[in-house]
Amino acid sequence: MSLDRISAHACFGGTQGIYRHRSTSIGTDMEVAVYVPPQAADGPLPVLTYLSGLTCTWENFTVKAGAQRYAAEHGVIIVAPDTSPRGLNIPGENDSYDFGTGAGFYVDATQDPWKTNYRMYSYVRDELPALIASEFKIDAQRQGIFGHSMGGHGALVMALRNPDRYRSVSAFSPIVAASRVPWGEKALGGYLGQDKEAWKHYDASLLAEKGGWKSPILVDQGTSDQFLEKELKPEILEEACQKSGTPLTLRRQPGYDHSYYFIATFMGDHIAHHAKILKA
Amino acid sequence: MSLDRISAHACFGGTQGIYRHRSTSIGTDMEVAVYVPPQAADGPLPVLTYLSGLTCTWENFTVKAGAQRYAAEHGVIIVAPDTSPRGLNIPGENDSYDFGTGAGFYVDATQDPWKTNYRMYSYVRDELPALIASEFKIDAQRQGIFGHSMGGHGALVMALRNPDRYRSVSAFSPIVAASRVPWGEKALGGYLGQDKEAWKHYDASLLAEKGGWKSPILVDQGTSDQFLEKELKPEILEEACQKSGTPLTLRRQPGYDHSYYFIATFMGDHIAHHAKILKA
Repeated sequence: MSLDRISAHACFGGTQGIYRHRSTSIGTDMEVAVYVPPQAADGPLPVLTYLSGLTCTWENFTVKAGAQRYAAEHGVIIVAPDTSPRGLNIPGENDSYDFGTGAGFYVDATQDPWKTNYRMYSYVRDELPALIASEFKIDAQRQGIFGHSMGGHGALVMALRNPDRYRSVSAFSPIVAASRVPWGEKALGGYLGQDKEAWKHYDASLLAEKGGWKSPILVDQGTSDQFLEKELKPEILEEACQKSGTPLTLRRQPGYDHSYYFIATFMGDHIAHHAKILKA
Repeated sequence: MSLDRISAHACFGGTQGIYRHRSTSIGTDMEVAVYVPPQAADGPLPVLTYLSGLTCTWENFTVKAGAQRYAAEHGVIIVAPDTSPRGLNIPGENDSYDFGTGAGFYVDATQDPWKTNYRMYSYVRDELPALIASEFKIDAQRQGIFGHSMGGHGALVMALRNPDRYRSVSAFSPIVAASRVPWGEKALGGYLGQDKEAWKHYDASLLAEKGGWKSPILVDQGTSDQFLEKELKPEILEEACQKSGTPLTLRRQPGYDHSYYFIATFMGDHIAHHAKILKA
């Protein structure tokens, strides 16, 4: 298991690297972006994984979010994987923007023809952190996760299901209830089949309602987001956290949309949120 | 003369707008990005124009440079035009990345078939500031200009030839001597013809050598820039400024390349440089 470097760029005193590796959980090559801040010279650092939204690769976040500045300020490594396997030539894989390529939804598929390769949950939770730990000087006990939209869903699900692995979590305009909105119903139905019991493991609000996550959750949501009412529904997460006493700060940001202009605006707050918890 | 808004996004408390307008100097439609920071509500603001490099549109800068954060911090409007006319169907226009489309070099062409439309010098110097002044609340006496690579060349030439119009100038990895490097020789030869006397008006170092520019010039140049030795040659500008007593701060940044990862790293310094002069 090793990373081949595609490119490396000096950035805010550290290095933004782009890598390719053969994924055992996915069964094909995957690309991943890793930002290593200047503090890496002084010893192991916390790791923050960012999960992107529908149609994205590592690139959108890496070039648009402005995260490197804050990662360099706080001394955290940032890992940004792709959103799905690519180029497998599975029939139907490229038919829509919200299923298949670019739309792995961070689940382990159980249905044919997806179950062999569409295993983003295991990839993000197990394989990628082990790979990063083997290639970079990280403090594996200090890991956080965040993401946008589908990736916000992924981050919340990862953290809430694995509080032993992640100390901090946040999200930008997340899909908070994947089992109950059109994007999620299509994806979970396709990857997991029509038995909705299986979907519950990938619904962030159902997971939050059960309790068990203790550190503060930060969520930013633009009020002018075109997907707000139909796909995102942050009030479902708000209610779930209230029921279980899970500490959630949900900020409704007036006038902001679903774009990286929104994400970039609040990226500094999110990385500060993680750094505070990870370095405590 | 008016701007049609293509899109607008809330960003760092202000608005990132993308506009289209019919250009009289270019003779076709042009797109331009304008960031208006939150301070615009309180009165007219200084304007900082950013000129992009080869192959770019307004988009590279607008999504990759992270400039909005600093513009919002200092209260300056940022205007980012395209790098050439587009879609004119002039024979040869799309044959190479460094001439024609995406490569206007900020000159007024004098040669057929370019002279009717490839008039980026007049567009940036005259038409665009007038248009911006008519559509936004700006302080037209407080204008600065900066850019990257070909756009760094454009910014230096604009400022040095027009000290009455621009108060501040800076550049990232600029082409400092367009009449004496391969990119510039190709472009100036094509747009201006083979009489090299005409080229002198578009060679930033020859202009600097004549003196006349008084405010400090900031230039950042990565030492790992693949174009450093063949196309950029910052030492020519350094020598010219020394001769004329023009105040230049040339910073050689170890390990940085020609990319927006480099630009983003030092964007804060550049906008602070302009804001200090423009708001003095």
